[in-house]
Amino acid sequence: MGLIYLDHLSATPLHPKVKEAMINYMETVFGNPSSDHQVGHPAAQALDKARQQVAALINAADPKEVVFNSGGTESINHAIKGAAIGLREKGRHIITSNIEHKAVLNSLRTLRLLDYRVTSLDVDHYGLVDPGAVEKAITPDTILISVMLANNEIGTIEPIADIARIAKKHNVVMHTDAVVAAGIIPVDVQQLGVNLLSLAANQFYGPPGVGALYLKKGTPVWPLIDGGLQENKRRAGTENLIGIVGLGMAAEMARLEMPDRVPRLRALKERLATGLSPRIPDIKINGHPTQCLPHLLSMSVEYVEGESLMLMLDDENIIVATRSACASGSLRASHVLIGTGLDFALAQGTLVFTLGRENTEADIDKVIEVMPGIVQTLRDMSPLYKKEHAAS
Amino acid sequence: MGLIYLDHLSATPLHPKVKEAMINYMETVFGNPSSDHQVGHPAAQALDKARQQVAALINAADPKEVVFNSGGTESINHAIKGAAIGLREKGRHIITSNIEHKAVLNSLRTLRLLDYRVTSLDVDHYGLVDPGAVEKAITPDTILISVMLANNEIGTIEPIADIARIAKKHNVVMHTDAVVAAGIIPVDVQQLGVNLLSLAANQFYGPPGVGALYLKKGTPVWPLIDGGLQENKRRAGTENLIGIVGLGMAAEMARLEMPDRVPRLRALKERLATGLSPRIPDIKINGHPTQCLPHLLSMSVEYVEGESLMLMLDDENIIVATRSACASGSLRASHVLIGTGLDFALAQGTLVFTLGRENTEADIDKVIEVMPGIVQTLRDMSPLYKKEHAAS
Repeated sequence: MGLIYLDHLSATPLHPKVKEAMINYMETVFGNPSSDHQVGHPAAQALDKARQQVAALINAADPKEVVFNSGGTESINHAIKGAAIGLREKGRHIITSNIEHKAVLNSLRTLRLLDYRVTSLDVDHYGLVDPGAVEKAITPDTILISVMLANNEIGTIEPIADIARIAKKHNVVMHTDAVVAAGIIPVDVQQLGVNLLSLAANQFYGPPGVGALYLKKGTPVWPLIDGGLQENKRRAGTENLIGIVGLGMAAEMARLEMPDRVPRLRALKERLATGLSPRIPDIKINGHPTQCLPHLLSMSVEYVEGESLMLMLDDENIIVATRSACASGSLRASHVLIGTGLDFALAQGTLVFTLGRENTEADIDKVIEVMPGIVQTLRDMSPLYKKEHAAS
Repeated sequence: MGLIYLDHLSATPLHPKVKEAMINYMETVFGNPSSDHQVGHPAAQALDKARQQVAALINAADPKEVVFNSGGTESINHAIKGAAIGLREKGRHIITSNIEHKAVLNSLRTLRLLDYRVTSLDVDHYGLVDPGAVEKAITPDTILISVMLANNEIGTIEPIADIARIAKKHNVVMHTDAVVAAGIIPVDVQQLGVNLLSLAANQFYGPPGVGALYLKKGTPVWPLIDGGLQENKRRAGTENLIGIVGLGMAAEMARLEMPDRVPRLRALKERLATGLSPRIPDIKINGHPTQCLPHLLSMSVEYVEGESLMLMLDDENIIVATRSACASGSLRASHVLIGTGLDFALAQGTLVFTLGRENTEADIDKVIEVMPGIVQTLRDMSPLYKKEHAAS
């Protein structure tokens, strides 16, 4: 049996067109785009093309507003720390939510060391941030609001356009971490009204370790990485052009294929959820039922360790995650699930399925066939499960 | 006539083994090394292998002391800003030299905004930093010394082991920017005695946009990029594994081929310098005559604009640089050349030749044949040249 890969959150296989573009680039160009000679020029052209491709994906008004970098985490660090330094004369207060990615939360932890203050807002049990609460939290020295476009563990899509409207009204810079949204669902920086938006190629069939920050013209953001004049002086360092070419092509393919991808993924996810629900008792689907990513299904399974479930599914060639790969290795329960009010035990019994363009209905049906038995095997080994089910 | 590429400072062509390793990786692995399942494991193994390859190149005691990142500039930013935040309780004074790369100087500019103080030391006319001056500059609140291993514009190799000994004596953390040295000449972090060392793959036939920071165990350096637990919690963000695999292989090939490469490059450089010197009057070779990189020749040509010379050589399919690609686009004279005492006009008439493994004696002879005529053509258009030579 082939592999059923349902962990597109951690890594996506390269789109064939992406792989082709990267290899073709490696075979034909090696120059530095800053070099004003015949070896440098083709590199500069490739960089321009990729910038236009990414700008088109997110509807940036000017390709120069796209700043390439080493991925979602750097992008988020740049947005948050760069705004903090750029706006330090104005104030030192930042607003965020409790369920942001660790790149956001830990960037803010570092800023606290440098005497910035942070308000971190609670979310409801769907993981939604309340725009009203954001507005209440704004003070005269608030300089930045950072709320994610979609959550990477439960898939809930936040009301970013509403929050950005409030930010604008109060003259506060607005960043959204769109890492798990961009390239998956339509993302339009002008409609959203944000100043800063982070994205990463490895979420939409591009290579890992390359991403971009949308940096709206006029936003006073200091570089995170200082040095040369690259990226219109926004991000120094010789560009990862092989990766950037891949990101550009991934962005183009996402834009072109998205109208087909979204309904397909949504149907597969629906098939998975409705197939598993009646076959496994005591499970909970996390996140908002409709305002959510089309390809992500978070499911908490009572009386079971998510880690064990993942490993047993792996033995059956079904690949899933328990949480963000960035947090794997941590023993703590997910701050996202705890943030939505889930108890510790249920949080630890959570799987995240993320579907991709190569998945089929047969893949989903195989999971529906195999998983209930595995869950039962694990529950049969759980003292708590036995105790509660003997008692009832 | 084929291309004669003498700008290996700006970009190196991929070593065939590097290209092969990267394409092979792209064809067979796509997982996230943090994922504990069968798709993630091969990625984790590739990451480990690359870490060992880089550790072997620089003789790190433990591969875990190698922290992968997006290149030399990020590495330098991490070392300097990370030490500044990590040691902020101890002090706020940093020592550097006047001829460092912009990544160093501009990182320090940002730290000045955050109330750090910087002493920037003069160099002699060879570009050498005086270890005695470093020791004199140390104060009780000095936390970091950052001096480059070799200069990227003039090739002078600094007495880093001596400076590191002084740093250690005064309990100050020592960073060296080895971006243009590592992979070119032997670099041994234990012999040098540094706590931090920056390197980049694109200087030694690896891909652009990937590098590493050597971070000696126990050095109190804060992350530059906060987030997940990657790179032993030193550098968050999903790894650029395609690039890292390339860096690993480039490091291995550099280690294996270095004993042959160094004397070959040195002989070619000598041939170039001794060939051009008698054929072009009024030129000056910059940098230290013996304590210098084997592949870099900096030459200032009086009465000529370096930019014009570069473009005319480009027309003859001879590719050179006027300075670091990171600084191209800047109209100012090189701070490195000015730092060594060169006057403005001569600094603007400077070419940097950087030789590589694919260059031949025939390449060098062609430059010796072509360049004198081009220089004369340009001088014949220079009013200053005509005036001074009419007068004499």
